[in-house]
Amino acid sequence: MLEELRTQVLEANLELVRAGLVIYTFGNASGISRDDGLVAIKPSGVPYDGMRPEHMVITDLNGRIVEGKLRPSSDLDTHLALYRAFPGIGGVVHTHSRFATAWAQARRPIPCLGTTHADYFRGPVPVTEAMDPAEIESAYEANTGAVIVRRFADADPMQMPAVLVAGHGPFCWGTTPADAAHNAVILEYVAEMSYYSTTLADSQELHPAHRDKHFLRKHGKNAYYGQK
Amino acid sequence: MLEELRTQVLEANLELVRAGLVIYTFGNASGISRDDGLVAIKPSGVPYDGMRPEHMVITDLNGRIVEGKLRPSSDLDTHLALYRAFPGIGGVVHTHSRFATAWAQARRPIPCLGTTHADYFRGPVPVTEAMDPAEIESAYEANTGAVIVRRFADADPMQMPAVLVAGHGPFCWGTTPADAAHNAVILEYVAEMSYYSTTLADSQELHPAHRDKHFLRKHGKNAYYGQK
Amino acid sequence: MLEELRTQVLEANLELVRAGLVIYTFGNASGISRDDGLVAIKPSGVPYDGMRPEHMVITDLNGRIVEGKLRPSSDLDTHLALYRAFPGIGGVVHTHSRFATAWAQARRPIPCLGTTHADYFRGPVPVTEAMDPAEIESAYEANTGAVIVRRFADADPMQMPAVLVAGHGPFCWGTTPADAAHNAVILEYVAEMSYYSTTLADSQELHPAHRDKHFLRKHGKNAYYGQK
Amino acid sequence: MLEELRTQVLEANLELVRAGLVIYTFGNASGISRDDGLVAIKPSGVPYDGMRPEHMVITDLNGRIVEGKLRPSSDLDTHLALYRAFPGIGGVVHTHSRFATAWAQARRPIPCLGTTHADYFRGPVPVTEAMDPAEIESAYEANTGAVIVRRFADADPMQMPAVLVAGHGPFCWGTTPADAAHNAVILEYVAEMSYYSTTLADSQELHPAHRDKHFLRKHGKNAYYGQK
Repeated sequence: MLEELRTQVLEANLELVRAGLVIYTFGNASGISRDDGLVAIKPSGVPYDGMRPEHMVITDLNGRIVEGKLRPSSDLDTHLALYRAFPGIGGVVHTHSRFATAWAQARRPIPCLGTTHADYFRGPVPVTEAMDPAEIESAYEANTGAVIVRRFADADPMQMPAVLVAGHGPFCWGTTPADAAHNAVILEYVAEMSYYSTTLADSQELHPAHRDKHFLRKHGKNAYYGQK
Repeated sequence: MLEELRTQVLEANLELVRAGLVIYTFGNASGISRDDGLVAIKPSGVPYDGMRPEHMVITDLNGRIVEGKLRPSSDLDTHLALYRAFPGIGGVVHTHSRFATAWAQARRPIPCLGTTHADYFRGPVPVTEAMDPAEIESAYEANTGAVIVRRFADADPMQMPAVLVAGHGPFCWGTTPADAAHNAVILEYVAEMSYYSTTLADSQELHPAHRDKHFLRKHGKNAYYGQK
Repeated sequence: MLEELRTQVLEANLELVRAGLVIYTFGNASGISRDDGLVAIKPSGVPYDGMRPEHMVITDLNGRIVEGKLRPSSDLDTHLALYRAFPGIGGVVHTHSRFATAWAQARRPIPCLGTTHADYFRGPVPVTEAMDPAEIESAYEANTGAVIVRRFADADPMQMPAVLVAGHGPFCWGTTPADAAHNAVILEYVAEMSYYSTTLADSQELHPAHRDKHFLRKHGKNAYYGQK
Repeated sequence: MLEELRTQVLEANLELVRAGLVIYTFGNASGISRDDGLVAIKPSGVPYDGMRPEHMVITDLNGRIVEGKLRPSSDLDTHLALYRAFPGIGGVVHTHSRFATAWAQARRPIPCLGTTHADYFRGPVPVTEAMDPAEIESAYEANTGAVIVRRFADADPMQMPAVLVAGHGPFCWGTTPADAAHNAVILEYVAEMSYYSTTLADSQELHPAHRDKHFLRKHGKNAYYGQK
């Protein structure tokens, strides 16, 4: 069932390992079949080494397990909240990658200082509000999703495929699990460079014309990067 | 004698190498058999490459060598002080890993800025007092243990499995040698991220409710991370 | 056609991968045959893995494709502007390498703080002016070249084989594609060291006599480094 | 001739590569046979890959080439000045390793902030004075040696086997080429940690009693680290 999706989700998880974004059992990636209304997600606390497509857990959009012998990632309810709120996305990735998490811990948005950032994220990568104790104490993972969704009330998740959860770390998404993982790798890369720039000087944001030029070189109908 | 413990201790030492926490002959891990009252520890100054279980040195809790042809780690007396004072621990690890040592040298506790930290350490990772010259000049390694134990007079070592010895580096522990090594790797990871966060902004500590939520997702009877 | 040049250009692109200066499809290197007035450049958005000499795209100095089935790097027009303005160069490399880009984002020249820098770059590595919206909105890549060339109105590109485009990243060049890639690797190395020096202290520039001594140990008719 | 010394010198050079202290043809290591009054040193500007013992160049203490078809390292005269001034040393290593060079560029001694440092270097690692233009313009490499030797007028090179040449980088030494390379690797390690500590807080130097305890655990007749 959903064999191809499981394989894509496994592969997105493994990309996080290859790119050095996760250690031990950190991190989780998922993907959705919109037609079936079903999500495939990494199991909780299982080593990446030896992980196979059949270990992925299939749930519906309310978190009911439909197939799989293992318990799903404990962050499942955050993924589901994002799938319900952002209908254009097909994959979600969560890591505690070093530099993106450092910005999340500093509770500062990652400023758009350069074209590498603008190629993928149209503006500063936002930080959520801090969660309040009531949100933490019950339905914590669902509320983590809710605080993200609130942050995007006026923003387009397809132009800003990442967020920093305050005091926690990044969630990224994309049209597919592979795209979400790719965005997580790039987020870490720009988080690292912006850390250096920011500690070196009071950097200024990229001019909006420059930011949009780069975003639109790669996205939308007038894109001209790559072979398509 | 204690073949399984030796193998566990060797494996914990090798995990420090694999994770990049030690170079050359730096670092040492040990484990204890509480039933036998015996400790197995890495030998002093021996290269990791080619190290085998039979190279581990077995001592009693007073440091008397019971088995082994090599001299034990020069930090043996610190390990023993921890085993005597903290009855719940089964393994101890000492490294000079880069970021954790940098905090120890800066003589600042590692603040609990995020959930990665809170998943493992319930609050800021403490720093010991500086040792005074008399403590340094005689029974130095035993006194290093004593200064750690004093620091935990009001703290639970099972909820805070790490300490920074001022001007020296981290000691970590856990229920087994593997658990102690795992904690040492995570400590380095959070020490690195908190370094970035702290140099980026005056970061604020994670709210206690958020900190405890994450610690208790992974520890204690209501834990729900992983497959158990 | 231009088989050797294609191979050199491919090899320069792969050197960027080996040195960790690029991830995914980032970066691009090109080379020129001055006799033929033709440039070979990496195709746009193609993975490095499996890239072969025949994938390089051949264009004339106005960007007309002469041979090749793929679209050339979207930065082609910047490369061409450099080849037209700097007749002594034979290769151009563009990356978003971490530290060099961090300086570009901070819009600070990389100061010449040490002899490693002086061995390759005779003075601070300059930053361009910010591009204005009109320059960005049309003929963006050609204008990126123009802003670089303007910055070198009073400078010798053979003694300063690198520039930082403000808010973007480095462009490097050299007598051959391999030389350009080599300069890109060294630029990243000195950008990293100067980041550490600058965040550690208000560093002072190397004395001009010291700077020139090192530059001239390696360049020009009195050079005495190496085997020639 | 001096086959064993050549092999030791080659091996010390390769250790710099393995430890990530040098890229391309950066760095150089040498060794001396005190009985013969002859030095073996890496050739200038030759790739490490494929380097063999017979490529090492043998010179006397005045720099006259006694055997070898290649030109010696351009830093030969600095090595010779150290061998002449410090009769206890058997090997010299020079690198532009990232963090040690960053301190040299910042023209700050590396403070002795912790026991890792004290295990190898008995106090802050000193920085030379800046060289004046006359010293740079003629006999530059010999004068680099002279400025180091002046810095050690009141210091014991056997207790401080490293120096930072201002605006340049580290020179290290030891009883053998392997020992000098080992010290260069440790210097880079402590330079990195002290960079983090120093940018994190106004760190305080380790107490002299603590510093000496660690130095003397590893050096001199009462040493008790390792198996001897």
